[in-house]
Amino acid sequence: MTDGSTQSLRSDARDNRDRILEVARAVFATEGLDVPMREIARRAGVGPATLYRRFPTKESLVTEAFEEQMRACGAIVDEGAADPDPWRGFCTVIEKIFDLHARDRGFTAAFISAYPHAIDFTEGRAYALTTMGALARRAKEAGRLRQDFVIDDLILVLMANGGIQAKSPAARIAASHRFAELAIRGFATTPLRPIRPSKARAHSSCSSA
Amino acid sequence: MTDGSTQSLRSDARDNRDRILEVARAVFATEGLDVPMREIARRAGVGPATLYRRFPTKESLVTEAFEEQMRACGAIVDEGAADPDPWRGFCTVIEKIFDLHARDRGFTAAFISAYPHAIDFTEGRAYALTTMGALARRAKEAGRLRQDFVIDDLILVLMANGGIQAKSPAARIAASHRFAELAIRGFATTPLRPIRPSKARAHSSCSSA
Repeated sequence: MTDGSTQSLRSDARDNRDRILEVARAVFATEGLDVPMREIARRAGVGPATLYRRFPTKESLVTEAFEEQMRACGAIVDEGAADPDPWRGFCTVIEKIFDLHARDRGFTAAFISAYPHAIDFTEGRAYALTTMGALARRAKEAGRLRQDFVIDDLILVLMANGGIQAKSPAARIAASHRFAELAIRGFATTPLRPIRPSKARAHSSCSSA
Repeated sequence: MTDGSTQSLRSDARDNRDRILEVARAVFATEGLDVPMREIARRAGVGPATLYRRFPTKESLVTEAFEEQMRACGAIVDEGAADPDPWRGFCTVIEKIFDLHARDRGFTAAFISAYPHAIDFTEGRAYALTTMGALARRAKEAGRLRQDFVIDDLILVLMANGGIQAKSPAARIAASHRFAELAIRGFATTPLRPIRPSKARAHSSCSSA
């Protein structure tokens, strides 16, 4: 085998890998993570054997497909955590993370489902949530974030962000920005009157003026 | 033909109709409104001819499938509009409508897509949105609802509510209640400092303390 053909084989292999990842990202974004591996192989135009040689499990494919987004997610929470004003840092994270998720629905699905065996992915997710949890504590201490905020609220609004549909990706991203702003206000401490203890309206933040 | 067999034929027809509607609601809720009519017929165990005889168009099927929900939706906004405190009325509508939508994802899909040819359905939707618009105006005048609230914000949070996933219907409804409370706070007037004019952080409601 000449150097040239080895080169070409390597290049083919890389092309296959890139094409599989590209197809996987597109499929996960539009159809969720449940699409079978065989179907991904079919759409990428490779045999199942080739797919399984590169990505032995669905988890490994998910992890590699969203490696870049997970790194971006980590950078966003790091940036927020580094802000000397924890509430401003918290808000920056919400805004940027909503934007990141609005650009890739597949990542939202992956982030929410938290594949238990995708070690790298789960570590990235845990890092993001732990860092955000610490930032939230500081924002509470600063009196700007609601005391009853829990990290599940972040997952909740990320899922909700994933439900936003629009006629174009640009319109969806714009809608996501508006939604981020609403979520931030929802998390902020406000001078709303205390909840009136009423059976009918328990847990409501509304009260008669 | 005896009276008995006529009765039985009518009863069969009604059974068919009820089964089609039941299947349609289930299919729309889990797979959206794009499922073909033929597939709905197949799952309901009737021939396409029977389906089309009862529901000549997808629109007519959607309208009848969600007739009850649309009536409930109208009753909710009427109740909110009748509250002498417009902000409390507005909040009641958000809470109850999120709950209604959390119980039936198909209705959310139908409400958002606003089928242009489903006259009855579109009228019900327009009535709900117009009534809610008038209530929102009054809640703004009362100083409790943000001046920049637009009716599209309501559609936005309804879509977002539709994105919430949970392990069980009960958990999803509970998550929706939390989300309704966040959305209400997002819509409320708050003492957040005015937006700092900054290129990087335009449209943000956050400001340094």
